[in-house]
Amino acid sequence: MEEDPLGEHYIIELYDCGKNILNDLNTIKLTLLEAARMAGATIIDQRFHKFSPQGVSGVIVIAESHLSIHTWPELGYAALDLFTCSHDMNLSKAMDLLNQVFQPGDTDVRYIPRGIMNPRRRRETEMSILEPLTAEPI
Amino acid sequence: MEEDPLGEHYIIELYDCGKNILNDLNTIKLTLLEAARMAGATIIDQRFHKFSPQGVSGVIVIAESHLSIHTWPELGYAALDLFTCSHDMNLSKAMDLLNQVFQPGDTDVRYIPRGIMNPRRRRETEMSILEPLTAEPI
Repeated sequence: MEEDPLGEHYIIELYDCGKNILNDLNTIKLTLLEAARMAGATIIDQRFHKFSPQGVSGVIVIAESHLSIHTWPELGYAALDLFTCSHDMNLSKAMDLLNQVFQPGDTDVRYIPRGIMNPRRRRETEMSILEPLTAEPI
Repeated sequence: MEEDPLGEHYIIELYDCGKNILNDLNTIKLTLLEAARMAGATIIDQRFHKFSPQGVSGVIVIAESHLSIHTWPELGYAALDLFTCSHDMNLSKAMDLLNQVFQPGDTDVRYIPRGIMNPRRRRETEMSILEPLTAEPI
């Protein structure tokens, strides 16, 4: 019985970002692709879209699962997800790039194990806050 | 100060699925696209890939955010995510279709609010189990 989760899902909330960056399709696309590479992901495909009047959505299919972003420029908020079946992604390097480009005033990163093969352990699944990557509690 | 979360994120774990379906790119693609429509999503773009020796990954960009799937046919497991900024998606209709097609022996659906504009409430964010959509605890 496999005890490790099959996937690792990082829920990344970037608040109080620069509003210009959150509407900049090309910069967001290049940043997410570079963040995927920095994390050690193998990029397979990607799709980014700019919405009217504002907002950008993007998904990158990686061999290890996916990376996604959705932005609310009018509120300075970006929602990112990194779902990976690799257990040795370098999330901190990717986060450094995201923080550098999006310059969030507040960041909240959570981790959820995905695919728990032991049925007895599924019900215990918890979302955990990744302290080193989150802002100080307000 | 907006009190509702900007996004609603549903984490859907399908265990003990039929192993043939989890490697069937076309059926998975058609099912996910139909599930997105049934949920009330506006489909903008989609990308599905079959991996060697097995497994399928797919992402659908919807006007409301995204829908994704990753499958482990050898383990009978599929990981789905529905991220939506709409507050009136019909998740149960989509889940009915997913259950009908994937026939999971065990299902676990969790909800995470995304984009909490009130900083004081961000630290309280919890993942909740959606009882009507989850299997009985083992």
